[in-house]
Amino acid sequence: MGGIADLSAEDLRALRDRVRGEYDLFRGRGLQIDMTRGKPSPEQLDLASGMLALPGNGDHFTEAGEDARNYGGLQGLPEVRALFAPMMGAPAERIVVGDNSSLALMHDCLAWSLFKGVSSEMDPWSQQSGTPAFICAVPGYDRHFAICEEYGIRMLPVPLTGHGPDMDMVEELAADPDVKGMWCVPKYSNPSGEVYSTEVIERLAAMRTGAPDFRLFWDNAYAVHHLTPQRHEIANILELCEQAGNPDRAFVFASTSKVTLAGAGLALFASSAANVKWYLARAGKRTIGPDKLNQIRHVRFLRNIEGLHQHMEAHRALIEPKFDAVIGALEKRLSGTGVARWTKPEGGYFICVDGMDGTAKQIVDLARQAGVVLTPAGATSPYGRDPHDRTLRLAPTYPSLREVEQASEGIALCILLAALEKHIDAPLAHNA
Amino acid sequence: MGGIADLSAEDLRALRDRVRGEYDLFRGRGLQIDMTRGKPSPEQLDLASGMLALPGNGDHFTEAGEDARNYGGLQGLPEVRALFAPMMGAPAERIVVGDNSSLALMHDCLAWSLFKGVSSEMDPWSQQSGTPAFICAVPGYDRHFAICEEYGIRMLPVPLTGHGPDMDMVEELAADPDVKGMWCVPKYSNPSGEVYSTEVIERLAAMRTGAPDFRLFWDNAYAVHHLTPQRHEIANILELCEQAGNPDRAFVFASTSKVTLAGAGLALFASSAANVKWYLARAGKRTIGPDKLNQIRHVRFLRNIEGLHQHMEAHRALIEPKFDAVIGALEKRLSGTGVARWTKPEGGYFICVDGMDGTAKQIVDLARQAGVVLTPAGATSPYGRDPHDRTLRLAPTYPSLREVEQASEGIALCILLAALEKHIDAPLAHNA
Repeated sequence: MGGIADLSAEDLRALRDRVRGEYDLFRGRGLQIDMTRGKPSPEQLDLASGMLALPGNGDHFTEAGEDARNYGGLQGLPEVRALFAPMMGAPAERIVVGDNSSLALMHDCLAWSLFKGVSSEMDPWSQQSGTPAFICAVPGYDRHFAICEEYGIRMLPVPLTGHGPDMDMVEELAADPDVKGMWCVPKYSNPSGEVYSTEVIERLAAMRTGAPDFRLFWDNAYAVHHLTPQRHEIANILELCEQAGNPDRAFVFASTSKVTLAGAGLALFASSAANVKWYLARAGKRTIGPDKLNQIRHVRFLRNIEGLHQHMEAHRALIEPKFDAVIGALEKRLSGTGVARWTKPEGGYFICVDGMDGTAKQIVDLARQAGVVLTPAGATSPYGRDPHDRTLRLAPTYPSLREVEQASEGIALCILLAALEKHIDAPLAHNA
Repeated sequence: MGGIADLSAEDLRALRDRVRGEYDLFRGRGLQIDMTRGKPSPEQLDLASGMLALPGNGDHFTEAGEDARNYGGLQGLPEVRALFAPMMGAPAERIVVGDNSSLALMHDCLAWSLFKGVSSEMDPWSQQSGTPAFICAVPGYDRHFAICEEYGIRMLPVPLTGHGPDMDMVEELAADPDVKGMWCVPKYSNPSGEVYSTEVIERLAAMRTGAPDFRLFWDNAYAVHHLTPQRHEIANILELCEQAGNPDRAFVFASTSKVTLAGAGLALFASSAANVKWYLARAGKRTIGPDKLNQIRHVRFLRNIEGLHQHMEAHRALIEPKFDAVIGALEKRLSGTGVARWTKPEGGYFICVDGMDGTAKQIVDLARQAGVVLTPAGATSPYGRDPHDRTLRLAPTYPSLREVEQASEGIALCILLAALEKHIDAPLAHNA
């Protein structure tokens, strides 16, 4: 099919009517498919079935011979920290293992920076003049933005370029002393899937910041979540920060939520020695220690970093076909129409689609009416406001492959139908 | 032995020399016993061995048929909330199940009240005029006090009377609008072991507070932790607050850390419907949900409230002899000497000893030199400052019964020796 911008008004209407007919048929199928969130499927969770009876009765001792059932061990077991050290890009002594949610670690780091200060030498962000602000790479993760909104942190959107945020813009914004941090998902970014280039990471590590207490919130959520045989590696932010004379700049986060069990994984934090000390001092007021039995489950099940990578290969075998199905459906239906562009991620959990400007809400609504639930339009922008109303986040991992195939066909239809109706109402130069 | 106050100076010195000889012998035994913290013993943790292989492979569904391995379920599984409803004194819909630390729930409730406000209608405590203050029942739990200190909340000590805090003093302090909350361990209090009377609880629920956003932090940590056949019950704070027209006054906390597994238990929160909604709104910014597999472990292992009580009976069988050993040693050595008084708790995890004024630090130091580590003197008071330097917290659950017997003999010696040396230096009217 050719670009819709080239069609006569009459052909446009005829095409719209035909596509609407197809949409009505699709809607008539009464599907119920949830593509909203990056959740592992039951089959992916089954890969970790071997954890469900661990540690087993009578075998609850750490490698140091300590009883993992009791209190304590705030930083996490050394063997668990050693296991994840290569993934975190930090030595075991600069890693902290939390409970099941890396989001919680990010929340706490932000709240403590805001209300306690990033160190004993710095006032809390909240007690400095000016309203603290964060740079937000867009499209980004709605739960990052929600934490900022919860605590009244202004969000400054910066577009992603395909290999990380627009660094000229980031450097300009970071020069403002009120700008205290930045959200980054540096590998297989949520939702654009892009991998930050070495140049971008070097500039983030070395840039001048107006605030001496600026922090990169480095959410490496998809560090080992590859969708191709290539295991992309990114530059080591902690090392680069240190080399640039900004050793305390980056807070690195990750979790095993999408490695082992989504609700029962381990959250991980890595940073400089000073920041780890700061983190533990704060966390030690909040808890006596994490669930070390769950740490033992992880280390016995995954064994080592190669075991982890092998486990991720099994995930890939399950989810790669789903990503292919989405991309195949979009290509089949939309290639050459000029109504959308989409990512072909090599890792992570999302496909990002830009429809025609002003159609994202309409697409989500059309899909919903046809039984396919998508992430709300706008969710990938701060405050839920997509200024172009065009970005969709598709999460293909949770439904079955057959459901993903069906849903993708419908989503492509909705994108096309919304574009046609928009174009008939008010012909526009398309954005794709 | 008679009271040491009645002894002549010569007899006093002779006794001191004899007791010092005994102490030196005790020290020579080279013991290494930790009586610092209220930790369950390995044998107590063994009682929950049946949980260590749960949920088992393939049986990870909730009663509603949901997959407990995946994300979500912020409030906790309904069956878990129903199980603990009698213990929490609230219906299941007004209970939240967190991860392994009730201290973390208390920390978060305090931090959110301070920085977000207790409701959308109230300014955060931190943004009101005046420095927020908490009433602290003393002796109390050092980790409560540490949270206040972390966030700059002034602590106002109020003495416990044997059946709860001195309510005249509490009511007077609570009239100040800067007084925003109060720490309470209402049953088998840490460390005094006392049980708040119905009158005290009624007054706490009904008292006029200067602050409309005053909150009782009701840490019912020992709700089911009985040391005698009598299962003491306390008045229901949530119901009394509601009846008194203060439905949102109390945040109730508990955990299974000393029921199932100290590092891998469940934390629980109960309050009014409005407070639960508030809590979930805040917590939902921090995490996608708790570890529901651990919730399933608990409900399958404990089954119901009667199962829970039976489990606690098994704990009692293990720890009651240890409490008896401590009290027996104190009685044997110190009865009638006038140098100390101590509690005989009917539940909880601690024995509280008041030595002679000005001797607690010395006792802890003498014990340490003899290989018996006690909670630091002062820990049971805000800021770690015991104005009388007399209160000791003994935690007999973790060491073996034989170790508790040995340690108690030594502790009694240390108490006596410190009193004798103090009395010889500066004869004082004793406080006991």
